[in-house]
Amino acid sequence: MGLKLYGFSMSAPTESVMTCLAEKEIEYELVHLNFSAAEHKSPTHLAKNPFGLVPVLEDGPVTLFESRAISKYIAYKYKGTGTDLLRQENIKEEATVGVWLEVESQQFCPAIDAIAHQILINPFLGLPTDQSIIDAKLVKLHLVLDIYEARLSNSKYLACDFFTLADLHHLPYIHYFMKTPYADLITSRAHVKAWWEVISARPSFVQAIRQNNNTAC
Amino acid sequence: MGLKLYGFSMSAPTESVMTCLAEKEIEYELVHLNFSAAEHKSPTHLAKNPFGLVPVLEDGPVTLFESRAISKYIAYKYKGTGTDLLRQENIKEEATVGVWLEVESQQFCPAIDAIAHQILINPFLGLPTDQSIIDAKLVKLHLVLDIYEARLSNSKYLACDFFTLADLHHLPYIHYFMKTPYADLITSRAHVKAWWEVISARPSFVQAIRQNNNTAC
Repeated sequence: MGLKLYGFSMSAPTESVMTCLAEKEIEYELVHLNFSAAEHKSPTHLAKNPFGLVPVLEDGPVTLFESRAISKYIAYKYKGTGTDLLRQENIKEEATVGVWLEVESQQFCPAIDAIAHQILINPFLGLPTDQSIIDAKLVKLHLVLDIYEARLSNSKYLACDFFTLADLHHLPYIHYFMKTPYADLITSRAHVKAWWEVISARPSFVQAIRQNNNTAC
Repeated sequence: MGLKLYGFSMSAPTESVMTCLAEKEIEYELVHLNFSAAEHKSPTHLAKNPFGLVPVLEDGPVTLFESRAISKYIAYKYKGTGTDLLRQENIKEEATVGVWLEVESQQFCPAIDAIAHQILINPFLGLPTDQSIIDAKLVKLHLVLDIYEARLSNSKYLACDFFTLADLHHLPYIHYFMKTPYADLITSRAHVKAWWEVISARPSFVQAIRQNNNTAC
């Protein structure tokens, strides 16, 4: 039985997993849930993920949710194919990939995702945009990106000199952030800008965005 | 060269790593940084963690930060000793540990930690307590704990019928939350309460809390 990925069109976490699957050259079936019809809150979907969120991956008897758990699972299980996303042959590189995976999760994403959510998602949901949240998260994001700028002046990618899962997890969040009025936080930092241009040009990501944005849902 | 852990007294992330090290029966040196003297913002510490946070682990040539990255590194590297925290012998259990590690990180901690921070940390820092943040996070935490209650009615621990790193990561956060006026969110749910009582009685955690709360810093 092949892999089946349930997600939303234009969903950053869904696109993160799609990019990971493409980097690992793994075939899968993509199933778009209908957000407007609340298919993610249906009993069928809640049995897969009790939080009623996407993405969900089915891989034979294993059902997973939480995008970062899914992509780590894929990267570990299919370590022999496609891009080496975890650098497991080098314990120092592998440990550093783990560190920057958590930096994305704990420092970067809570700031950038909140800003993109306020500007791009709230209007779609008919909710007001709260500028005080945007302003507070911009302060945090500036600090985080200053550290990224210093890091990327000494390292081609975040964890080491190779593209890893730690870089990959940033891709869809920056992609949507670049559609906000605050894209200069990325483009005004030379090393962050160069890193973003390199990683966002990867065929895996270009393909994931194209595939996931062309399907009305 | 032995392991060296840098942390703060009464720091949940520090205690999470201490508990993990105890579960894996690993000797290490604990170095308490002086928060009031801002030792975590010193050039020496910023060279270890550019975010100026704790904990930091040094293991020979490897220096790690972000508590979840550190404990995962310990659990993977020292899989042959102490408690099996990752269940790597069973791919379904291992995948499910990964899922609930991310649930803690993405769903549980952002709610419970914000509440504890407002009530316990802000007064210590001379900052006001923002009840609107507490109220919003309580709504989220109620929803998360309802899902935990259902999960724990079918599973002894979060990921499977064995204590894993997914349970461990919750320990210090619930410990401090129980000192707030909202402890009934835990104790009013029978299965969550029973789970908390079992996991918080583990010698690894009892020892970590005792060791990390007895040192003035």
